[in-house]
Amino acid sequence: MTLTAPSRRSSPAEDTAVVTTSVVVFTIRGRRLELLLVGRRSEPFRGYWNLPGGNVLPEEDLQVCAERKLREKAGVEGVYLEQLYTFGRPDRDPRGRVVTVAYYALVPPSRLRQPAAADAGMVGWFALDGLPALAFDHGEIVGQAHRRLVAKLDYSTIAYQFMPEAFTLSQLQGVYESILGEPLDKRNFRKRVLGLGHLVETGTVCRDGSHRPAKLYRLRNPRTVEIIK
Amino acid sequence: MTLTAPSRRSSPAEDTAVVTTSVVVFTIRGRRLELLLVGRRSEPFRGYWNLPGGNVLPEEDLQVCAERKLREKAGVEGVYLEQLYTFGRPDRDPRGRVVTVAYYALVPPSRLRQPAAADAGMVGWFALDGLPALAFDHGEIVGQAHRRLVAKLDYSTIAYQFMPEAFTLSQLQGVYESILGEPLDKRNFRKRVLGLGHLVETGTVCRDGSHRPAKLYRLRNPRTVEIIK
Repeated sequence: MTLTAPSRRSSPAEDTAVVTTSVVVFTIRGRRLELLLVGRRSEPFRGYWNLPGGNVLPEEDLQVCAERKLREKAGVEGVYLEQLYTFGRPDRDPRGRVVTVAYYALVPPSRLRQPAAADAGMVGWFALDGLPALAFDHGEIVGQAHRRLVAKLDYSTIAYQFMPEAFTLSQLQGVYESILGEPLDKRNFRKRVLGLGHLVETGTVCRDGSHRPAKLYRLRNPRTVEIIK
Repeated sequence: MTLTAPSRRSSPAEDTAVVTTSVVVFTIRGRRLELLLVGRRSEPFRGYWNLPGGNVLPEEDLQVCAERKLREKAGVEGVYLEQLYTFGRPDRDPRGRVVTVAYYALVPPSRLRQPAAADAGMVGWFALDGLPALAFDHGEIVGQAHRRLVAKLDYSTIAYQFMPEAFTLSQLQGVYESILGEPLDKRNFRKRVLGLGHLVETGTVCRDGSHRPAKLYRLRNPRTVEIIK
């Protein structure tokens, strides 16, 4: 690391930073939007919770680092993962200059795993509306991830990342409500979602006993997040 | 810089990177979408063009660094500037690990300045569809900035960042067409734009002699980029 830009006068060492990734891992359980936190065992912020993440290895791509953290801490692979924003305030870590490239991941409830035994007690799922105090600027990162998710509800099929292959409109509405944190009007929701044309009927129904049978739907193009125009 | 994460085995020096910002500075001139490039005077990629940017200073915030580069190279301040994406492939710079936080800026044609004399000949505006070969992964960064801009046309008032305070619908259509790189149907464009309800008539008209007078419009909430639902 001996890079110098022609216009810079400080020594090369002053120009370097530790680069980390931080991952906001969302899931929805029991109609609650939850995220994964890791307990800190060392200073600074010892005893606080923070986002899963860590140093980018010398030969590691940023996204590969985020995928590794997701695998190590949440035990999942192959879920939706998107770069969110890079946070680099000079004073965000008391140990020195640390720039973190934040990602967010969406884990369908069916993919949830128990944390590895080694991490038991140090990894937990928390409701977004009941988070403990977070270390560093991680509260700000979580806020931005939630805003991105809410914004994308309006113009993309991102919510379907939380759905099983076949689902009822009522289940889908539950996911939207969990993300938005507020109830939606059932008639308007159905009209809007069906009007967008990205859902197809599976031809089967869901019977849970307590209600009349509900039609099951699937996404026309599963596995991709489409922009809705 | 002596940060070590508990789970890491490499030495601290291996964990550091040079962090830079790169700015894609867009403007529209003569109905062409153009961007600002800087000629490289030193290796690597000597003689190539690249995006304005450089090392983040030790006590400098990322966005402040991008604003500084914008001021130094494009001579403008207070224009729309947004973080785009962070690029960190391990091999993206032959000198070592360099992570660049990319931004994009939108400069209205009325704000364009001549480059400072010291930089004359080393700074230039290029049409997006006629760019020279760019150094590093800057071609990829430009592509992503353009895709973001195109996507935002659909669901935000971002295009108005290129407009003067009062404008005709024909001028606005020209900006959309410049960004999209294709002609739009005049009737559909007007219907859609007026239907969104974010334009108000100024009550005056524009006469350029060759056409009949055209109504002038302004944005209901200028200076903010709104999401259109």
